[in-house]
Amino acid sequence: MTATTSAARGGVDLGGTKIEAIVVDSRSTVLGSARRPTPTTGGPGDVAAAIVEAMREACHFAGIESSSLRGVGIGSPGVVDSTTGAVTGARNLPGWSGTFELGSTLANGLGTKVFVGNDVQVATDAEFHLGAGRPYKSVLGVFWGTGVGGGLILDRKPWVGRGGAGEIGHMVIVKDGARCTCGRRGCMEAYAGRAAMEARARKQVDKGRKTDLFHLMEERGRNRLTSSIWAHALERGDKLATQLIDEAVEALGAGVASAVNVLDVEAVIIGGGLGVRFGELYATRIARAMQPHLFHDENPPDVVIAALGDLGGAIGAALLARGKR
Amino acid sequence: MTATTSAARGGVDLGGTKIEAIVVDSRSTVLGSARRPTPTTGGPGDVAAAIVEAMREACHFAGIESSSLRGVGIGSPGVVDSTTGAVTGARNLPGWSGTFELGSTLANGLGTKVFVGNDVQVATDAEFHLGAGRPYKSVLGVFWGTGVGGGLILDRKPWVGRGGAGEIGHMVIVKDGARCTCGRRGCMEAYAGRAAMEARARKQVDKGRKTDLFHLMEERGRNRLTSSIWAHALERGDKLATQLIDEAVEALGAGVASAVNVLDVEAVIIGGGLGVRFGELYATRIARAMQPHLFHDENPPDVVIAALGDLGGAIGAALLARGKR
Repeated sequence: MTATTSAARGGVDLGGTKIEAIVVDSRSTVLGSARRPTPTTGGPGDVAAAIVEAMREACHFAGIESSSLRGVGIGSPGVVDSTTGAVTGARNLPGWSGTFELGSTLANGLGTKVFVGNDVQVATDAEFHLGAGRPYKSVLGVFWGTGVGGGLILDRKPWVGRGGAGEIGHMVIVKDGARCTCGRRGCMEAYAGRAAMEARARKQVDKGRKTDLFHLMEERGRNRLTSSIWAHALERGDKLATQLIDEAVEALGAGVASAVNVLDVEAVIIGGGLGVRFGELYATRIARAMQPHLFHDENPPDVVIAALGDLGGAIGAALLARGKR
Repeated sequence: MTATTSAARGGVDLGGTKIEAIVVDSRSTVLGSARRPTPTTGGPGDVAAAIVEAMREACHFAGIESSSLRGVGIGSPGVVDSTTGAVTGARNLPGWSGTFELGSTLANGLGTKVFVGNDVQVATDAEFHLGAGRPYKSVLGVFWGTGVGGGLILDRKPWVGRGGAGEIGHMVIVKDGARCTCGRRGCMEAYAGRAAMEARARKQVDKGRKTDLFHLMEERGRNRLTSSIWAHALERGDKLATQLIDEAVEALGAGVASAVNVLDVEAVIIGGGLGVRFGELYATRIARAMQPHLFHDENPPDVVIAALGDLGGAIGAALLARGKR
């Protein structure tokens, strides 16, 4: 083991669709990466096995054994106990309604220390340390994708509450409003999440509304409306897509402004599949939609787009293993 | 000056209706107190003069010169710069839309150091250090009165953001909903604040709805619906009062749960005129109204009533002057 390899760390972004594994050096430069589809059947043990495979493959490309890594960080959905590495109620993952000892299982499989954090929080940490959040001491990360997740940095430190903080997608913005994918009513995510927008689009199509969204999906051989399909439909001027995205921006404006009214952070960082795909124009649109709801409207936070793109989650996860052995 | 008097501190709760000044010893026991109506005309200078008067009177009862106090803390509305003691945009106070150097003005008038903090935040600090928040490391203070204010303790420390955090009353709970006293739409305070509830009651009366609320107000020689008038009307089974309070509780449920979804604090402390007046039964009612909106509904925070009552704000303000000279 050389001095160079001993500083290398692993990072895994465990998503509902894919597992992204990377190996980085001490400066967070990516040395190797690998990707696996997230198992859709089985249980937490199968997900852990897929993570070990992906991490080993990333190590292979980086030319290092997983056991030589300084450590591996995992960004996981669900409620994370960062002390024990246990993950509870990761509802987008198969058979994971209870608690699973993800950290120790992976530590056995990889032969190195494993640190587990919340997926959205580690992506926020990455933006704070290495990306769009570097100029600030307090930021709210808003990850606009299938759902709407939030991560917090307050006074340069992550805030995770009792392990479940940052659920900005489930702030109520329309009491007794639309049904959310979580089963509750009127959540911001029920208007702004990609899964909810797709459900709304399908309902409109069932009512006879015209849209290119689902033709684009079929053309591309996909079974869901990806961020790129939404972007393409907007470029074509598709009326239903435009209306639903406008409604999503309005919902984000109300919800994110509400969070800012409570926290008064310096900056809001917009990431996630839709956020990264839509870019600066949408940071401006979301800032404009927040303005009427900001209590201190004379002093709005900066609203910026995430700088690390798709790998931000894995890079942030690798930060968990920094300086710990 | 004896050792005893040198440990004494002053605390002022600067409210829209009244100025409450106290002198406390090192254990926060109240040695003297005084109260003045808050000037409704003039400007910040007149408010500062009234604070000096009230503080001097409290000192008189405590048998101490204001210049012998270890320091005086002020809990102020508006955006507070705690470093300089400047207060900006205290919109419930006369002629105070701009910035006023409250700290230095009072330091001159009282002959001791003056520390300025946000009114709701210092009341939350008081509950955290001396009241209902003592068992916890993270709390959200919810002050349910004329408006709905919020204060935050995260990891045992106050969180004030850029000086304007804690505006939970202006979280959007019904996008495009009822007009709030702040001019915006759909804020929690538009449904739950006492001022907004009174406006809603008047509208219903104008439409021919029956209620005892305004008779009770006249009987007591008041010109607004106080917490005690609302409590009395509820005891009598007044239908309009019951309906409006039910709606307020529902609004608090949605808004406070949204804040908890973001912050995942251990406890919510309900204070303010209505909160303190209504007591434990309403802590339970608010907890029940939060439950359907909590994302981690398996792990709700404790919901408790503020323990320090009306003096909590002034006691918390006095904490600002603790250990600083």
